[in-house]
Amino acid sequence: MKARIIITPKKAVFDPQGKTVQNTLEHFGHQGISAVHVGKFLEVEISGEEDIEAVRARMDEACRRFLTNPVIEDYTLDIIPS
Amino acid sequence: MKARIIITPKKAVFDPQGKTVQNTLEHFGHQGISAVHVGKFLEVEISGEEDIEAVRARMDEACRRFLTNPVIEDYTLDIIPS
Repeated sequence: MKARIIITPKKAVFDPQGKTVQNTLEHFGHQGISAVHVGKFLEVEISGEEDIEAVRARMDEACRRFLTNPVIEDYTLDIIPS
Repeated sequence: MKARIIITPKKAVFDPQGKTVQNTLEHFGHQGISAVHVGKFLEVEISGEEDIEAVRARMDEACRRFLTNPVIEDYTLDIIPS
């Protein structure tokens, strides 16, 4: 089973990486780019038989405790059964 | 419309960030973690009326030309209509 976590800066937090990517896209001629957000992607492969909801609960706790910074980041967690 | 791009190191490329996250999860008591892959996430907001396939083609070209390093990274591109 896999847990896929996408971590992005909260919309109110200044995102200099996103701004840099936006400028680069514009420099290369891409028009109509209104915003770019840059975040992190984590894929955790979990082996062994386990209940999806139990995996979701413990990965969610890991996200809140140490994988993300909830003050400045949002995350989405998806569990993909194998 | 939004383009969501997930960039991950190719499986054959050593992923020290992934190994660090795996060790941290194990340190906090998570068992059965067989691998962790750490990558980047980009969300590009595109305004103006445009054809989905045209947006996909130009974002795909941007991914290949400068948003990713195709030697060591893989990417997935999804276009989400607004």
